[in-house]
Amino acid sequence: MANVLPKSVQRLINDLSRLPGVGPKSASRLTFYLLRGSDPTLATDLAESLAILKESTQYCSICQNITEQNPCEVCTDEERNKTLLCVVEEPLDVVAIERSRAFLGKYHVLHGAISPVEGIGPDDLKINELIDRIDGSEFTEMIIATNATLEGDTTARYLQMRLSDSGLRITRLARGLPVGGDIEYTDEVTLGRALEGRSEL
Amino acid sequence: MANVLPKSVQRLINDLSRLPGVGPKSASRLTFYLLRGSDPTLATDLAESLAILKESTQYCSICQNITEQNPCEVCTDEERNKTLLCVVEEPLDVVAIERSRAFLGKYHVLHGAISPVEGIGPDDLKINELIDRIDGSEFTEMIIATNATLEGDTTARYLQMRLSDSGLRITRLARGLPVGGDIEYTDEVTLGRALEGRSEL
Repeated sequence: MANVLPKSVQRLINDLSRLPGVGPKSASRLTFYLLRGSDPTLATDLAESLAILKESTQYCSICQNITEQNPCEVCTDEERNKTLLCVVEEPLDVVAIERSRAFLGKYHVLHGAISPVEGIGPDDLKINELIDRIDGSEFTEMIIATNATLEGDTTARYLQMRLSDSGLRITRLARGLPVGGDIEYTDEVTLGRALEGRSEL
Repeated sequence: MANVLPKSVQRLINDLSRLPGVGPKSASRLTFYLLRGSDPTLATDLAESLAILKESTQYCSICQNITEQNPCEVCTDEERNKTLLCVVEEPLDVVAIERSRAFLGKYHVLHGAISPVEGIGPDDLKINELIDRIDGSEFTEMIIATNATLEGDTTARYLQMRLSDSGLRITRLARGLPVGGDIEYTDEVTLGRALEGRSEL
């Protein structure tokens, strides 16, 4: 069998395969898409974007979100409520919550959740930074917006325990039917939570 | 809504979204995977691989496959059968056929298939290069290994028409059940082709 793939092509296929959810087959397809030239500047654009990504980003020293300026735009925004703190797992969670336009306080990004299975403990997350930040702050409420997963729940319980005598009001996001959700197709755990959390009409 | 995504992050998300099959959501996920640093060298490796991809590859002037040396390894391989020519749509088809170890002749890559719907005609493919190459060559048989799709079939019929008085034996890949294929789950067109192409046991 001849080595029919040039080294540089094989190299890109290998590197793309290291991305999560990209197998060798889709890596090949992406590589040949880049070679075929239906989007001639894409390979170069991607190369540049990747090169500047890490150079120009850092963690905000206050909220730990990814930012180009430190402190970040949210932390320096004087218009935002300084008494409300929303704790999330990942920077993308901040994006999702901002998109809802339902929160105008500050954020704290943990960069993960406690997961004994994956060997991720509290010290691997930005939890000490959170404790230090809350100490002596103006915050009156901390909304724990971790995922509705085992890891997210574990992290929430851990935070509640660590901050139980901080004087903060500690809340969690509501559980229930997603908007547009069909009862027939809702899993029993979600339905159970929706019933528990029912409110007056 | 604060612009919570740094420009360089948004830029990479936009560029990744230009890849086929990658939507804005998976582009975000890939970007944050690269930022998170579970594979710290990946962003840089990808940037380099992308940058060298186009610089170091070209089309082989004989078979039109993608190569780093011109003519390519297959075209310069004296061990391969010079009388057998296999015509394929894409470079990845060469890889697949080489993997079968069932073909030891030469290749010709068309870089696509005729598709009136997408506005791709014979002149957009490497068909003139194929005709020029066959003229005066040692080839005795041309195996048309285009895809078993409408476009692949159209391309095959077009090639057969153009080369009908070339004196070449023109063949196509067999149609039938894939190995391991279950009759119960095989579509009726494939089953029809498998019956037509039946052979003596």
